[in-house]
Amino acid sequence: MLKSKVTISDVAKAAGVSSSAVSYALNDKPGVSAATRDKVLKVADKMGWRPNSAAKSLSDASTRSIGLVLTYDTQVLSVETYTMELISGLTAELEAEGYSLLVRSAHSARSEMDVLKEWIATGAVDGVLLLNIELGDPRVELFSAHPEMPVLLLCDTSMSGGLTALADDEQGSAHLLVDYCHELGHQRIARVAGPERFGHTFTRDNAFMEETAELDLQYSCFHTDYSPEEGRRCTERLLSLPKPPTAIIYDNDVMAVAALQTAAKLGVSVPDQLSIISWDDSFLCNVSSPSVTALSRNVVRRGHQSARMLLDMIDGEDVESMIDAPSELVFRDSSGPLAG
Amino acid sequence: MLKSKVTISDVAKAAGVSSSAVSYALNDKPGVSAATRDKVLKVADKMGWRPNSAAKSLSDASTRSIGLVLTYDTQVLSVETYTMELISGLTAELEAEGYSLLVRSAHSARSEMDVLKEWIATGAVDGVLLLNIELGDPRVELFSAHPEMPVLLLCDTSMSGGLTALADDEQGSAHLLVDYCHELGHQRIARVAGPERFGHTFTRDNAFMEETAELDLQYSCFHTDYSPEEGRRCTERLLSLPKPPTAIIYDNDVMAVAALQTAAKLGVSVPDQLSIISWDDSFLCNVSSPSVTALSRNVVRRGHQSARMLLDMIDGEDVESMIDAPSELVFRDSSGPLAG
Repeated sequence: MLKSKVTISDVAKAAGVSSSAVSYALNDKPGVSAATRDKVLKVADKMGWRPNSAAKSLSDASTRSIGLVLTYDTQVLSVETYTMELISGLTAELEAEGYSLLVRSAHSARSEMDVLKEWIATGAVDGVLLLNIELGDPRVELFSAHPEMPVLLLCDTSMSGGLTALADDEQGSAHLLVDYCHELGHQRIARVAGPERFGHTFTRDNAFMEETAELDLQYSCFHTDYSPEEGRRCTERLLSLPKPPTAIIYDNDVMAVAALQTAAKLGVSVPDQLSIISWDDSFLCNVSSPSVTALSRNVVRRGHQSARMLLDMIDGEDVESMIDAPSELVFRDSSGPLAG
Repeated sequence: MLKSKVTISDVAKAAGVSSSAVSYALNDKPGVSAATRDKVLKVADKMGWRPNSAAKSLSDASTRSIGLVLTYDTQVLSVETYTMELISGLTAELEAEGYSLLVRSAHSARSEMDVLKEWIATGAVDGVLLLNIELGDPRVELFSAHPEMPVLLLCDTSMSGGLTALADDEQGSAHLLVDYCHELGHQRIARVAGPERFGHTFTRDNAFMEETAELDLQYSCFHTDYSPEEGRRCTERLLSLPKPPTAIIYDNDVMAVAALQTAAKLGVSVPDQLSIISWDDSFLCNVSSPSVTALSRNVVRRGHQSARMLLDMIDGEDVESMIDAPSELVFRDSSGPLAG
């Protein structure tokens, strides 16, 4: 774990390839060309690189794992494509270094804290990934007091309390979405958001208020638990307003697709009378009818990136916080100008 | 781990409640009434029950985890609601006993074997759940040679080589599906199946051939990797036959919903000209347009049940193989008699 050790990132820099490529090459896994593999092996050998895996004996107490606590309601979890895509990316990247993902379910924030404290006390995991950071989150304080445990937070850097974070460009995304609705001619925009206590919801709330105020648009927002039921309920509420919004942005794909049904039930035509946009792309948005315009965040890649950053930290490197690549808007059939 | 120890199941039998209820009560988690909790605590105390958790010290090398290897293509994995629902059920049930799920990704059957051997050698997990058992699967031989490692197979008991299995009632499900299509008047039925090497695909293949032969129906079948792309391709192939099928059953929800698009593209009306049925229910089937008739397997419950069986094995109990509760058909808009 000493910085003086030659790390995968050191080899990557010297060979001029990505850390993932080095990892695949050194572990003899597919994913790199023969030429790259040769080059990496030569550079690594020259630099005196030694694998962590070989150094660890079978009797080592380390599980070679990254810990992830899922603190959600079970039913919501089962429809959340975001989580599965994140897990896919994480485990695929971890595989190349023989690491596992230790998944623990927690029914409350308090029981998540118990799990995290246990992991820190026992060293049952080599690093931890934290999701859904809340305002004044006690997990930030916990890990700040335990710098020996590598931790990565998926949240805005303003909330990570100096811990390493992989952030989404929420402000940029809000700008993209509001600008798109404005260009289509919408004057009344609404958002059906995630839980208010989550840091990224808070960041989005502020960004949306700023962006809509700047363009002099009317803006309203309801907060939910991300479930399709609450997505439907909030859509009904918004559409029953005296002057209902003509464009609604949903904080996940499940609520956006559920809202299509609500609109159909109420006789509101999409996109002629109402544009529906999802803040998260997935297969769901692609196969629904009409298909749903969505912000594509490439969550699988985010999983890869998170695993890479954690593995580098475990390797003893100083890893800086990063802002993820900007999201892109995928235009589909659920959004457009008002008809008539 | 001795049988003489009082287990959660012993307490459950004596108190006349489920093992889950006992587990929740003893661990002071929500999910049982105050009355049940009281009763369980009294019975457990009387029987001299001692928690595993308290008995295990922090320095214990055990990770208190169940191992699960996901050997899929990453992209398919990310759209597979089955896997996420199974993980939800598993982790929710494990939580009550302070267990985690250790998830490992493997890009090939061979690398999965390496992981399993490592787990057996190091005892990094207390039990293992095996998915997608293949014909002549080397994993069956491996675990037969290591009876010290508790293992549960999600497969037909005919393929588990005497190891404990939690089976789906594939024959009963095939009967239900074929009978339904026959009653609607369909004479040509097709199936777009999962990978041919999987045991459950093989069992379904046989069951479908038997059931359709019995009713003198024409039957054709293509095998896929479960991806929406292959679902679309096979649908196109089937619909280009001189006498195309009028009802197609898909082995997962993703392919069934993707097929709706293919049918629309080819100008084939669902359900007037073609009935589409999914062998797996999910949110996808519910929100697609038309909504998709599906066999509901309650995968979350299956996850709970799997975890329960494994925890009982780890507790030293003899756990018998089981056949899961029969599936039910959820009737929606994608199936019906031929029109005209």
